[in-house]
Amino acid sequence: MKLKVKDMDIATGGIQIVILNEEDARVLDLHYEDRLLVKKGRMKTVAVLDIAESEKAVPRRHAGLFEEALDALHAKHNDEVEVSLEKKPESVSYIKEKLTGKELDYPKIFAIVNDIVNNNLTTIEVTYFISACYTHGLTTKETVALTRAMINTGNMLRLRQYPVLDMHCIGGVAGNRTTMVVVPILAAAGLTVPKTSSRSITSPAGTADTMEVLAKVDLDLNRIKKIVDKIGGCMVWGGAVNLSPADDKIIKVENPLSIDSEGNMLSSILAKKGSVSSTHVLVDIPVDRGGKVKNRKEAEHLGRQFRKVGHELGIRMRIVITDGSQPIGNGIGPALEARDVLYVLMNDKKAPQDLKKKSLMLAGEMLEMVGKDRKIAEEMLGSGKAYKKMCQIIKAQGGARITKPSMIKIGRHKFDYRSEKSGKIARIENSSIAKIARIAGAPQDKGAGIYLYRHRGEPVKKGEKIFTVYAESREKLGFAKEVLKKVDGIVVK
Amino acid sequence: MKLKVKDMDIATGGIQIVILNEEDARVLDLHYEDRLLVKKGRMKTVAVLDIAESEKAVPRRHAGLFEEALDALHAKHNDEVEVSLEKKPESVSYIKEKLTGKELDYPKIFAIVNDIVNNNLTTIEVTYFISACYTHGLTTKETVALTRAMINTGNMLRLRQYPVLDMHCIGGVAGNRTTMVVVPILAAAGLTVPKTSSRSITSPAGTADTMEVLAKVDLDLNRIKKIVDKIGGCMVWGGAVNLSPADDKIIKVENPLSIDSEGNMLSSILAKKGSVSSTHVLVDIPVDRGGKVKNRKEAEHLGRQFRKVGHELGIRMRIVITDGSQPIGNGIGPALEARDVLYVLMNDKKAPQDLKKKSLMLAGEMLEMVGKDRKIAEEMLGSGKAYKKMCQIIKAQGGARITKPSMIKIGRHKFDYRSEKSGKIARIENSSIAKIARIAGAPQDKGAGIYLYRHRGEPVKKGEKIFTVYAESREKLGFAKEVLKKVDGIVVK
Repeated sequence: MKLKVKDMDIATGGIQIVILNEEDARVLDLHYEDRLLVKKGRMKTVAVLDIAESEKAVPRRHAGLFEEALDALHAKHNDEVEVSLEKKPESVSYIKEKLTGKELDYPKIFAIVNDIVNNNLTTIEVTYFISACYTHGLTTKETVALTRAMINTGNMLRLRQYPVLDMHCIGGVAGNRTTMVVVPILAAAGLTVPKTSSRSITSPAGTADTMEVLAKVDLDLNRIKKIVDKIGGCMVWGGAVNLSPADDKIIKVENPLSIDSEGNMLSSILAKKGSVSSTHVLVDIPVDRGGKVKNRKEAEHLGRQFRKVGHELGIRMRIVITDGSQPIGNGIGPALEARDVLYVLMNDKKAPQDLKKKSLMLAGEMLEMVGKDRKIAEEMLGSGKAYKKMCQIIKAQGGARITKPSMIKIGRHKFDYRSEKSGKIARIENSSIAKIARIAGAPQDKGAGIYLYRHRGEPVKKGEKIFTVYAESREKLGFAKEVLKKVDGIVVK
Repeated sequence: MKLKVKDMDIATGGIQIVILNEEDARVLDLHYEDRLLVKKGRMKTVAVLDIAESEKAVPRRHAGLFEEALDALHAKHNDEVEVSLEKKPESVSYIKEKLTGKELDYPKIFAIVNDIVNNNLTTIEVTYFISACYTHGLTTKETVALTRAMINTGNMLRLRQYPVLDMHCIGGVAGNRTTMVVVPILAAAGLTVPKTSSRSITSPAGTADTMEVLAKVDLDLNRIKKIVDKIGGCMVWGGAVNLSPADDKIIKVENPLSIDSEGNMLSSILAKKGSVSSTHVLVDIPVDRGGKVKNRKEAEHLGRQFRKVGHELGIRMRIVITDGSQPIGNGIGPALEARDVLYVLMNDKKAPQDLKKKSLMLAGEMLEMVGKDRKIAEEMLGSGKAYKKMCQIIKAQGGARITKPSMIKIGRHKFDYRSEKSGKIARIENSSIAKIARIAGAPQDKGAGIYLYRHRGEPVKKGEKIFTVYAESREKLGFAKEVLKKVDGIVVK
């Protein structure tokens, strides 16, 4: 059947879509989510069928095309196209196999991941895959295969150095910006640390958001390679360089139900590490009753899984289980955290001691992993070499090039949260602190967030400040004040 | 944030959608599939967020609205709206419970089904629900709850009569149009049979498609009630009267992976029966190695499930396990099947004996179910009373009002498929016959299909016709001939 193109003036950013009028679809015996081969002269493309119930959306004898399909066909409004039924990709049958509980091998998992990356699978199909991974779980073999497939379908940072160090913290702890202290320490010690980080999705700041206060983080692979070759370390946003791109598409269908299966989490993390040629990876697993990993037993189990999968991938793993029951550092939010990091690196008296101590411990663990003395960490920090390295990294990455705490702008609207009675801080929960900081504008408003004066167990007098909320707009500060009234995660006893 | 409306000129026919530019979404900290409360003055509605990556699709400071959302807000292009984050429906957390393997109770299942019907759930969320039902299965309690919820969220045909008879055949057998013989027999015997049927999705004809050759099938509930009150029986398309409307939306996400879990199948079928007040239901389970139910053991298991769930719903069930290994009747396709049905009802010598015999058996079972003599079936058929009743039903339903085989138009393009050797028909598979009939145009082209001269086990000589393919266009007949060359389900030995 010859159809006239209707330019739908929409882009999905994903799979190609063609919309037919309900009547035409019925006559052609085509159904929702069928694959259609759409041809215009010699150009052709495969698109997924959606059905329009009204003549207004797509009239009869028309094919409504989204931008991606128009581009692929070099077609424009009112051009003529032909459509015919096309088979579903093989990977759809593998997804069904997994749904029925079968174990998938590498070629099958690769086919699925490759089709996800190339936009050959629909949202429904990807959702079935993630759902199957969640309900049936992934075996170690499958997790390894998934990780490899995610690495092999994306870009790679190929480095000649050995060893290549990397670290990851299972999130959930507010202010926990150890990475930005550890990377300069290790690089100052002559090690290679090509650190890619994510932006925040649900927290007040990701490492990429915080580093962005000081320098550019969206560099391309060539630039990253040059910096790492020259300086030893970097701290950039992984999202800019298309490392394991399947990840974002998987997260897109995980988020609506906040699903994160163990297998998917392991491969999501390890694929990023594998993509930058890491040989030694430290994983920090904070334990928090209200967080992602609820107790020591869960943490130990997760640690074992990391070691197993890492081993199969040829990556040496070390696991550190830490206390994640309260925020670390004083600042929460990109600018406030960046300031804390600089205080620590500069050995300033304003440096939060918990952030310093934890960073030194993690750096020590990594040094030990590659056969060096743990004490080098303190040496690098105390001597100012780590700070000097940080300044080199900031300058090499370009952008704002902020190297001093005084250069960092904090939100000018603020509100002091004071204790209503004298006593001890009994609770100061990550989730509450994160919520207030986000409502105040973090991480989009870099200067927004919270500055903590007290941690758990510390005494406080009636009327004394527990923390200050910072915001870049009066309106958002107002929202944060509202939320503060209802928050139950901050308790003085 | 105030946003200008962009009329996207698209309707989903489902959940309301609002599209924001990527930049605005980031500033507002909103994510793909978030629910947004969209306000225009006093009007408000909840829509699901999609994100546009280009300024062309949705420019900054704009909200792209689909038709459903525009209608709900009485909004038009360039109007001003405000958006804010809205909570997900409670039912999303119940879907997650099911995903983790928990049993859901009636209130939770009702909430999910009700949100499906009212377009409050996204495709991803419904897919997770169906996937969870498939991988974890549904307990009898859950299946009953799902059936009840599906009935209670749709229209009902409320009848005062008792008993109310109904039947269902698990599909897959080509030409198996027993319903159209059984319903007139039972109605002629004074019983109440408000039969609603579906259109074909993957077969060459559904009962609704076939009945449509003779009469109108898309009647409203009032009309159906009047006909049933007056004549005792009807044969209409269930899709026209919004009985258990959740079903179609569930099928929409099942189809892409051809998933049909036992629990979903049971409740899909029984919800339709419950919606028309059925008290006695006969289920025909054909067994076919290559079909839906592969062997007697599977059929017996399925029968037990039907009885269990039916019992809980207060519906008396009878199960008949039949041979489904080859087509029943001679005609395959709407017009050809309708003609067979009339031959049987008119006691014409062209009546296919297998169709007649099976219909009498099924009618006998149903008579017995309500305490009547099985033999009444033969009486009604032999005396012409069933045919008379069929004519009454056809006339009452309106439309073409075709009551004689000679009035039925068969496709004028045809092709005889002849045996290449002398022997016995060893195989004549439903799937092959269905495929050819569909390629020839069935069920969209009512006159398209196949007429069988031989069944399995019957002798055939070289050069004799096994069947004739009918089509309404030369092109489609050509397609069918092509497919015939590759078909392996028709074997003479």
